[in-house]
Amino acid sequence: MAGAETRDKAGDASFKPFHRPTALPIAFTAAQTRDLVDLLVWRRDVRAFRREPLPAGVLDRLIATACLAPSVGLSEPWRFVLVEDEARRAAVRVNFAAANAEALGAQAPERQAGYAKLKLAGLDDAPVQIAAFADPDDAQGHGLGRLSMPETIDLSVAIAIHTLWLAARAEGIGLGWVSILDPRPLARLLDVPERWRLIGYLCLGYPQAEDDRPALQRVGWEDRRDPACRLLRR
Amino acid sequence: MAGAETRDKAGDASFKPFHRPTALPIAFTAAQTRDLVDLLVWRRDVRAFRREPLPAGVLDRLIATACLAPSVGLSEPWRFVLVEDEARRAAVRVNFAAANAEALGAQAPERQAGYAKLKLAGLDDAPVQIAAFADPDDAQGHGLGRLSMPETIDLSVAIAIHTLWLAARAEGIGLGWVSILDPRPLARLLDVPERWRLIGYLCLGYPQAEDDRPALQRVGWEDRRDPACRLLRR
Repeated sequence: MAGAETRDKAGDASFKPFHRPTALPIAFTAAQTRDLVDLLVWRRDVRAFRREPLPAGVLDRLIATACLAPSVGLSEPWRFVLVEDEARRAAVRVNFAAANAEALGAQAPERQAGYAKLKLAGLDDAPVQIAAFADPDDAQGHGLGRLSMPETIDLSVAIAIHTLWLAARAEGIGLGWVSILDPRPLARLLDVPERWRLIGYLCLGYPQAEDDRPALQRVGWEDRRDPACRLLRR
Repeated sequence: MAGAETRDKAGDASFKPFHRPTALPIAFTAAQTRDLVDLLVWRRDVRAFRREPLPAGVLDRLIATACLAPSVGLSEPWRFVLVEDEARRAAVRVNFAAANAEALGAQAPERQAGYAKLKLAGLDDAPVQIAAFADPDDAQGHGLGRLSMPETIDLSVAIAIHTLWLAARAEGIGLGWVSILDPRPLARLLDVPERWRLIGYLCLGYPQAEDDRPALQRVGWEDRRDPACRLLRR
């Protein structure tokens, strides 16, 4: 656009993306596409972590990769809050325990015993814990694409989390997305702006074990369905 | 879980995922990780498509890959509605035009000329168009993980869209996510259940051009920010 004068001066023109490929056009070979599908098959929502920390520099690299995610109007509404303080981590565990007790009570009686046996969080062991929020108030993007569907801000953050997830998995690092939490008190205990919305609480670390099937499938809670039944025609 | 008797009989035990890797554990080599980052860098939100159709079988394969996405409680709430009927496609264009006119009017006066020049949808040319919905009422997953954060259903669908996006890009196929739409009338014109929620309207096809920068960045609408400023510590 010729109108560079309308460009938001808050944009940091000196920032260079950390990686660019050199050749055009990009299309994967069959082997590269197979690698991608392998990664998707193996992703896993990890609940059991080894306690060893991630090597230096890894987290910054994973966050940088996550920020390559698409976002509505290039608004990049993701805010990653690294939770390191032990007292705050303990408060997150208390928040989870209360939400989990409520969720257990809401299960059908015949499923409660099964629910109680599930391991639904890795909060005790995960060396890295990140609360991912959406900031609906930043001017970045100038509101483009979200007047009629403002929830696209939250969806953009979910996709950044997924990007982080895949980047971590590629390096052998597991991620577990904890959603059994009361989001408003959790946001308050992390001292973030009132209007930020919690999208997910993420545990990261090396997994204790690897498997090619979702844990909920392995324990008989639920099965995947045939993708063909998800496609309708109109 | 021993309690196989509690398993939902609606699960299709005969369904086999279409792809499994053979070796454990999975971790990418440096070259494979570079491929993944290349794909993320090159993804693009495509607005200008060539009209040629996708080869036979491609769409079913992409949908199957999208269904490898994570979902809250293994609920797989995504519903992909392939919009083929010309009258319905025309009605989607009308819906977009009205929402876009409203969005133009909501822009700050000094940005309206720039907004009017943007190409924000590929609805005229994209050979494949899919409305992606979230179904909040399916029993799959038995409510696990979403009592305190019911919006995780919608976030799961967003991640399935992102998975579809990456799988398409790997095959040289572009995807454009249109969010400048009035979602309730759009759902009605596609004759889907009343409670399904529109998450995104997707255009797919071979792109007219490829570029390593987001279109909104190329035209001066917005810039990416340094990922380091998105990471806070608590």
